[in-house]
Amino acid sequence: MEITVKFLMTHPFVDAVYMPLPTTFHLHWAILAAEKKKHLLLEKPTALNVEELDKILDACDKNGVQFMDASMWYHHPRTGKMKEMIVDSKLFGQVKAIHSSSSYAPGQEFLENNIRVKPDLDALGALGDAGWYCIGAILWAMNQTLPTTVTALPNVARNSAGVILTCSASLYWEKEETVATFYCSFIAHETMDLRVYGSNGTCYLYDFILPFGEDSASFNFTSGAKFVDLYIGWNVKPEVVEVTSQLPQEGYMIQEFASLVKAIKFSRSKPESKWPHTSRITQLVLDAVNKSIDTGFQPVHM
Amino acid sequence: MEITVKFLMTHPFVDAVYMPLPTTFHLHWAILAAEKKKHLLLEKPTALNVEELDKILDACDKNGVQFMDASMWYHHPRTGKMKEMIVDSKLFGQVKAIHSSSSYAPGQEFLENNIRVKPDLDALGALGDAGWYCIGAILWAMNQTLPTTVTALPNVARNSAGVILTCSASLYWEKEETVATFYCSFIAHETMDLRVYGSNGTCYLYDFILPFGEDSASFNFTSGAKFVDLYIGWNVKPEVVEVTSQLPQEGYMIQEFASLVKAIKFSRSKPESKWPHTSRITQLVLDAVNKSIDTGFQPVHM
Repeated sequence: MEITVKFLMTHPFVDAVYMPLPTTFHLHWAILAAEKKKHLLLEKPTALNVEELDKILDACDKNGVQFMDASMWYHHPRTGKMKEMIVDSKLFGQVKAIHSSSSYAPGQEFLENNIRVKPDLDALGALGDAGWYCIGAILWAMNQTLPTTVTALPNVARNSAGVILTCSASLYWEKEETVATFYCSFIAHETMDLRVYGSNGTCYLYDFILPFGEDSASFNFTSGAKFVDLYIGWNVKPEVVEVTSQLPQEGYMIQEFASLVKAIKFSRSKPESKWPHTSRITQLVLDAVNKSIDTGFQPVHM
Repeated sequence: MEITVKFLMTHPFVDAVYMPLPTTFHLHWAILAAEKKKHLLLEKPTALNVEELDKILDACDKNGVQFMDASMWYHHPRTGKMKEMIVDSKLFGQVKAIHSSSSYAPGQEFLENNIRVKPDLDALGALGDAGWYCIGAILWAMNQTLPTTVTALPNVARNSAGVILTCSASLYWEKEETVATFYCSFIAHETMDLRVYGSNGTCYLYDFILPFGEDSASFNFTSGAKFVDLYIGWNVKPEVVEVTSQLPQEGYMIQEFASLVKAIKFSRSKPESKWPHTSRITQLVLDAVNKSIDTGFQPVHM
């Protein structure tokens, strides 16, 4: 297999590589791909820690190739529509709090044997798999700015090999006085929540990672809600904002990635720095959650 | 006014008192009511701290009167229906995580002058007013058992008099490995979320304190959700469970309170201990959040 992969990676007809390997192998293979001038769409979590990711990003940078992690939900048109409404200072105002979850319960066999819970394959467990989305969603709502502190919460569960099956954390932005919390797990019912609380509005959805259906997706948005009176309800109910889509979100991701690659290849554009930045701060927060767990839930200053 | 109140409190035709006074006055007036053998429906927060509340509960106990705090949402038929579904071990399983919020933005005048932000009236601020509901909802989902630890999160905002306008906290139940988080604020858009994550199901609603409308109220419930495939959506969508109501939730509360009073008065029943217990553990957690804030966000062991 290694020979086939190396053959593909060095073949001049191959412009780009999508790399869904277990996290442990990212460092070696992603750097090799970059060195062979292949643009890189890398499965998340991007690396076992930010030191490894920095080596990958450095290789991409030196070789002028585009880096993007395969968090597909960023590319769904719904995500863009939500952002448009959240940044509207009248409709939404400032982000005050965020809550996200990513959980599913794949069963006992998975919890002992899947690559996602093997210390030598995906050692970051539920934090790396499910938690990556929560951290990404929170940072997305905060315009990709790093929090001041990251503190893990005490509900950590591990399998017999010590890999995380459940964890939670809080993130805090001191200047903005914004707090975010998330819950990720391999041992809870399927959820993928994102709830953003603003000073003038609220935005939320329950399928942010994988829309309930393929052709359209929605989110809920409320703005200017007030009590009508203390006992007769609200003046406005949440509006359901529906966004249709022509492609599965993976299709949009590939479109975006391919268009960046095309611009580099044919128009001498520079690689888009937004994507490596997005991956890097997600990995930084993920590392901080891990560090906070390892230090008995102490806050980690970023 | 004091003379009128005292007259009413001592009048033999008066069986019970609903006391919506600012929190500072609860200790004096609630004990007086109990000593006059008046059953007591007390506005929340019940007291400035659990030591005060214990004196009130003690007076109620000694005088054989019913105590209940005026958290009206416990009495809505929707709340009962949710509980019925959450305790179903097949449908919902174990509670793994909970998130709640209670926020509204009443404006600058309120933030400086309302009784809810005055240190000599409602010194507990947003934690006592909005946070009381979040803590109550979390404890409701956990069958009124105390958490192992309570830890405030760093996003505390105060007004010029030092009263809390925003805060958050995490609660942790060690045996159950369950985590809960909440966000309460006087400076964010109106929200009243409760999201309960189970091992087999998820239950959530956005108007748990005050239903969107008066005649019926709903919540969302999902059970047994799985990915259909990695790109074609979910096998089930959340079910909207609609519960009709004949009365505003305050009406149900008064009905419940009156029926307990009637049973004590005419059937020599004992006061129902569930309600003072519910208030007491809510106040205990509220005190712990305050203590955690005062000690630089250290966990408070319960």
